[in-house]
Amino acid sequence: MNQKIMTEINQLVADTRNIIVCSVDEKGYPNAKAMFKTVHDDLKSFYFSTNTSSMRTQQFMKNSQASLYFCGNEEINGLMLIGEMKVLTDSAIKQQFWQEGWKIFYPKGVNDPDYCILQFTAKQGHYYHALQKHNFDIE
Amino acid sequence: MNQKIMTEINQLVADTRNIIVCSVDEKGYPNAKAMFKTVHDDLKSFYFSTNTSSMRTQQFMKNSQASLYFCGNEEINGLMLIGEMKVLTDSAIKQQFWQEGWKIFYPKGVNDPDYCILQFTAKQGHYYHALQKHNFDIE
Repeated sequence: MNQKIMTEINQLVADTRNIIVCSVDEKGYPNAKAMFKTVHDDLKSFYFSTNTSSMRTQQFMKNSQASLYFCGNEEINGLMLIGEMKVLTDSAIKQQFWQEGWKIFYPKGVNDPDYCILQFTAKQGHYYHALQKHNFDIE
Repeated sequence: MNQKIMTEINQLVADTRNIIVCSVDEKGYPNAKAMFKTVHDDLKSFYFSTNTSSMRTQQFMKNSQASLYFCGNEEINGLMLIGEMKVLTDSAIKQQFWQEGWKIFYPKGVNDPDYCILQFTAKQGHYYHALQKHNFDIE
């Protein structure tokens, strides 16, 4: 992967506010939902906060196969990361990510059993731009 | 489905330039790619032009399970349509959708075997807005 393309990819991730999170439902259909970008470690790990009872979380509990999609605004450029999604319910992790104001989503606060963290770990990246495709492994 | 919500949904579709098209790859991972919105029939059918040789088309030839995602810009609102994607290679259909300037994508013109039409047929819709979820069937 050349440095110019990697700079473009990192800029796309930096500019993205809502990441499209993809799962596979019980009938085998691909599902998608926009989720706020929060903490991430380069292209390797991305974290999302969500409801444990949500359709998406329930799907990931049964099938961890996942992808994230970052959509450029100006033209058809996009980054897809393929990997696995873990559902984290550990109290220390939940504390670490908790933000003020989240009681609107999780009325019982940081220990609300309906609050959990999704941790995505990327294995492969696919970047499209200017009719060109760049595939790369993520280690 | 109340009329106000349906009006919101139709407005979101009208405002969307790039639709996120989701497939399932050979290893079972959900895949996503932004594609230009072109012709559609209400929420029922959406058409896309693409390369027959593309990764996405090849996936749909093996597995028609698909979804489309329409992402609102201002806030977390989004529409997911679940359904089936057909790959159409019939000459009359290809002629019907062909647009001037597409030789940049399909050098051999309208009969280029690498030019095909994807036809998505929706079965179900899921609309998220203001922390509320609206599920509906599409007939």
